[in-house]
Amino acid sequence: MKFNNFNVQISKKATIGKNVKIGDNSVILDNVIIGDNTIICNNCIIGEPLSDYYENAEYENPETIIGKDSLIRSHTIIYSGSTIGNNFTTGHRVTIREHMKIGEHCRIGTLSDIQGFSEIGHYCSLHSNVHIGQKSKIGNFVFIYPYVVFTNDPTPPSNVCIGPTVGDYSQIAVFSVLLPGVKIGTHCLIGAGSIVGKDVPDYQLVLGSPAKPVKDIRQIKSRETGESHYPWPYRFDRGMPWKGIGFDEWKETNQ
Amino acid sequence: MKFNNFNVQISKKATIGKNVKIGDNSVILDNVIIGDNTIICNNCIIGEPLSDYYENAEYENPETIIGKDSLIRSHTIIYSGSTIGNNFTTGHRVTIREHMKIGEHCRIGTLSDIQGFSEIGHYCSLHSNVHIGQKSKIGNFVFIYPYVVFTNDPTPPSNVCIGPTVGDYSQIAVFSVLLPGVKIGTHCLIGAGSIVGKDVPDYQLVLGSPAKPVKDIRQIKSRETGESHYPWPYRFDRGMPWKGIGFDEWKETNQ
Amino acid sequence: MKFNNFNVQISKKATIGKNVKIGDNSVILDNVIIGDNTIICNNCIIGEPLSDYYENAEYENPETIIGKDSLIRSHTIIYSGSTIGNNFTTGHRVTIREHMKIGEHCRIGTLSDIQGFSEIGHYCSLHSNVHIGQKSKIGNFVFIYPYVVFTNDPTPPSNVCIGPTVGDYSQIAVFSVLLPGVKIGTHCLIGAGSIVGKDVPDYQLVLGSPAKPVKDIRQIKSRETGESHYPWPYRFDRGMPWKGIGFDEWKETNQ
Repeated sequence: MKFNNFNVQISKKATIGKNVKIGDNSVILDNVIIGDNTIICNNCIIGEPLSDYYENAEYENPETIIGKDSLIRSHTIIYSGSTIGNNFTTGHRVTIREHMKIGEHCRIGTLSDIQGFSEIGHYCSLHSNVHIGQKSKIGNFVFIYPYVVFTNDPTPPSNVCIGPTVGDYSQIAVFSVLLPGVKIGTHCLIGAGSIVGKDVPDYQLVLGSPAKPVKDIRQIKSRETGESHYPWPYRFDRGMPWKGIGFDEWKETNQ
Repeated sequence: MKFNNFNVQISKKATIGKNVKIGDNSVILDNVIIGDNTIICNNCIIGEPLSDYYENAEYENPETIIGKDSLIRSHTIIYSGSTIGNNFTTGHRVTIREHMKIGEHCRIGTLSDIQGFSEIGHYCSLHSNVHIGQKSKIGNFVFIYPYVVFTNDPTPPSNVCIGPTVGDYSQIAVFSVLLPGVKIGTHCLIGAGSIVGKDVPDYQLVLGSPAKPVKDIRQIKSRETGESHYPWPYRFDRGMPWKGIGFDEWKETNQ
Repeated sequence: MKFNNFNVQISKKATIGKNVKIGDNSVILDNVIIGDNTIICNNCIIGEPLSDYYENAEYENPETIIGKDSLIRSHTIIYSGSTIGNNFTTGHRVTIREHMKIGEHCRIGTLSDIQGFSEIGHYCSLHSNVHIGQKSKIGNFVFIYPYVVFTNDPTPPSNVCIGPTVGDYSQIAVFSVLLPGVKIGTHCLIGAGSIVGKDVPDYQLVLGSPAKPVKDIRQIKSRETGESHYPWPYRFDRGMPWKGIGFDEWKETNQ
């Protein structure tokens, strides 16, 4: 139904794995390497050249690596110069700028705008319309919900660029802003609409503008069960590597 | 000027009404049914297959119905499996996921991201960049302004999914968040930047984070006239079915 | 690598300057005038017709002017009827509606949604995902950060449309909302997440929801130097006309 090889353009300098499908009107540019079984849907641009391309006749596109078994949904733009692990999934109209390092099993939702020069670990889920400023550092198993913004300039405009850091297993709810250089610990929960300007210790729920500590996340009950929901890896395993094993058992053999 | 039938792809399993125009580079996939006089602009995908398509060789696209006299602006993606009424209008780059039920005379603005599995009544207007999570239920004559988010997971991440409900004639201003399962009554006004975690009774203005009751909407004056502006159907009729009739007269014969 | 003249459509009624490059799958419609050396990337629509086009057989596209030395990134849509100065730059997927007047050396970031009927001065920088409602007026050297919204209807829905005004050199941080008709002075700083309903005098930092005065911006220190950072034109000159001259010297000869 899709994948008719209609208007597909693939650079001779690109390396395409086995069983890769590329959707109509999509473009794969120089020095892109796509892993086996990956699907690129319609109207995507993979390996978008950096700004220097428009000014420098000698410009050479840096290498762009997209892992195997990935699904890049339509209208997504991935700049050249990034390395993305296996089992990567995007929504539609995602923009990923240059010099990103993204781990395995990550998901970046529709309309998200990743400004480049940042790191995202493994098994992270960025939902729709997440904005990650440059110099951000996101751990593993981090979930970021719609309309969250990572900022990096404390006195705009300036030449200072210090991104936020987020520890493993933390959750950042809708419409939260991480202010420049803030450090979120592991297993934190940032409530909806928080403006976070101070570092957040592990296992902390913070909320508000400015965000203030509310309680330890281990005191939060599930509406479904009435029991503690956090740390969430004991209650939720969809798509997680501890599925069918249990979090403690998985941790013992993996950390 | 437009509509040159350039690079248009229409599935043989699609049903296209009379006087339908389809813009350049647009794709109409299997089992899409488009009503008479509808215009699909450039670079749209109508009937985008569900995730199962990528894994299941037997996949059959569910039926997608788009009513007559509709205008779908460019770069819009509508998944298969939704039913949308007549006189539907979108802005650009709208994403509508599967299993939506949308009434007649609705408008969904540029960049809005409708996650599917939800209901929207008649004569609703979602402005730019509205995010509707799954399991939401929106009544009739509801206006939702830019950057409003409907959420559905009270303890993220979890397997609980309980969307918000919004009653007829309610207005939700920019940057508001409806928290999971919250019920907004009829004729409510949710002020800009509100985080709404508690149910809101009919005719209530709420504001803030967390949103608190401020006053009855019937006490709000218009800047233009100095008189009460709400309930708004007595003061505003652009595009409404009571235009030229009056709201009371229309109600008598229609409710 | 790009610019293969693949699927490019240019109206015979368009005027294209010298050394203009137009990317694959892009469309230039009637009465568009593009200045010398400008680059239009892939999948753009320049001169998108107004709504009247769909209803009026006699429709004539109004003139659209894009200055020289500009860079319009991919998937951008610019409606007909706007005038944009030289050295204009956009990110990806920008939407610019009709009847905009935009000065020279402006930049509008990825996903921004400019609703038309507004003015933007010279050397303004709108970052990603900025929403400018109709009837807004933005001075010169204004920086607007991601997810800022300019509103214009004080009692929605109504027929009143009064946009905000922003003075020269002001900075509006992420997730701020300017309420209808509000006037921001010159050299102001609107802190992240502010909802601004009252006019802001020159040199004022405001913050919060509702936004309240915090201090004079000249009292804010730079994290980098520990010294006053504002007024910022004394500390920051990247892309500014006083670069290499100094702000005072430049002002003497230019204002």
